Amino acid sequence: MAQNIYDRPDFFEGYSRLDRSVRGLDGAPEWPALRALLPDLRGKRVLDLGCGFGWFVRWAAGQGAASILGVDLSENMLARAKAETADPRVRYLRGDLESLELPRESFDVAVSSLALHYVEDFAGLVGRVFRSLAQDGDFVFSIEHPIYMASTRPGWLTREEGGRIWPVDHYAIEGERITDWLAERVRKQHRTLATTLNGLIDAGFAIRRVVEWSPSPEQVASQPALADEMERPMMALVAARK
Amino acid sequence: MAQNIYDRPDFFEGYSRLDRSVRGLDGAPEWPALRALLPDLRGKRVLDLGCGFGWFVRWAAGQGAASILGVDLSENMLARAKAETADPRVRYLRGDLESLELPRESFDVAVSSLALHYVEDFAGLVGRVFRSLAQDGDFVFSIEHPIYMASTRPGWLTREEGGRIWPVDHYAIEGERITDWLAERVRKQHRTLATTLNGLIDAGFAIRRVVEWSPSPEQVASQPALADEMERPMMALVAARK
Repeated sequence: MAQNIYDRPDFFEGYSRLDRSVRGLDGAPEWPALRALLPDLRGKRVLDLGCGFGWFVRWAAGQGAASILGVDLSENMLARAKAETADPRVRYLRGDLESLELPRESFDVAVSSLALHYVEDFAGLVGRVFRSLAQDGDFVFSIEHPIYMASTRPGWLTREEGGRIWPVDHYAIEGERITDWLAERVRKQHRTLATTLNGLIDAGFAIRRVVEWSPSPEQVASQPALADEMERPMMALVAARK
Repeated sequence: MAQNIYDRPDFFEGYSRLDRSVRGLDGAPEWPALRALLPDLRGKRVLDLGCGFGWFVRWAAGQGAASILGVDLSENMLARAKAETADPRVRYLRGDLESLELPRESFDVAVSSLALHYVEDFAGLVGRVFRSLAQDGDFVFSIEHPIYMASTRPGWLTREEGGRIWPVDHYAIEGERITDWLAERVRKQHRTLATTLNGLIDAGFAIRRVVEWSPSPEQVASQPALADEMERPMMALVAARK
């Protein structure tokens, strides 16, 4: 079973204070880029893997999706998601992405935001998502970028002669990475970008788009801290089609 | 016009002493991985973009290719390639990948080894390669990996507390990178991996495989310096199909 970090009080408390938890999609700087990868959701059956507080689920309902299933492992998050959603087209399900079984050819669009880098058996999950999608179905997701995640000690470093750099080491050595983010000993799964893309291809998906997310000049102007994302990508976004 | 670095005496001298120049394909540790991406070449019309000394061209002839066209900008390299090739199926052409015009639907396989990161107009070249390939034609190439190339000052750094890291900075800022490799002021073009892959997709290619090259345990055992490639990828290999 995956680590249920979002139900640890220290992590949940910290996560709940993030801009993306308070303001929702508009608090996530990568949201315009993820949205641009999505097909028109009108009349579509949508699956959200790692739905969290349900921000995307409710947005999809607002876009005219026929039905939306939000899946998450965290009871805390699902409780809040349910409390904030009143729409008969929406259903929430508690489930572990490592083992979640999905009905065959039952969705038109599968979406996942910053959840799949917690999943150990990526190939297994991708195969299950593929089978759950109708023909020509879309799979659009964001993950932590492997450049951000590879190092055994991630974090900015300053050169002696000045200038900041992001360290890359152990890139080819995939598997668990333990970091202290919001809480101690958060477990993530480092995979190369190649492994992510080849996993999709092997499952039968066609790669439609790859985004190594960086902010627009307007975003940097309004949120100067985002300039970090020009130096090294923190997130990768991928659009694939069955 | 692209920088004709291989015809600068200092660079050419240094390049000629590299293992991959002396021993050919067997001196290139990524060759088994690149070879694994290639289709069976028997009876195929093959194009080699940046053919250098012609090692791959002659190997393709040995594999039973119907014809092989090797293109390079360097007179020095083409002179040696011609001197070492005696096969009526092989033709060498001096040309600049920035502007090279290719006949339509005339090749079954296009290959390029560590040349495309010198090309400024990648999208333009990819479009020309796409049109030059027959339906279902393969495009297989290696490039310097953007993780290796992004930094304005690439090179290993040592942490104060021990351990080596590779610096990443300016990743999202694409364009020229100047390095001193074999000679001073070698000009390369940094592109994110996403830009490379999306360029192929936009031209009409399907991505078949992405490799962020790292050595096998056997390779590291016989060439310990290759352990560097576990820490950060120096090369990316891509297989795409029309």
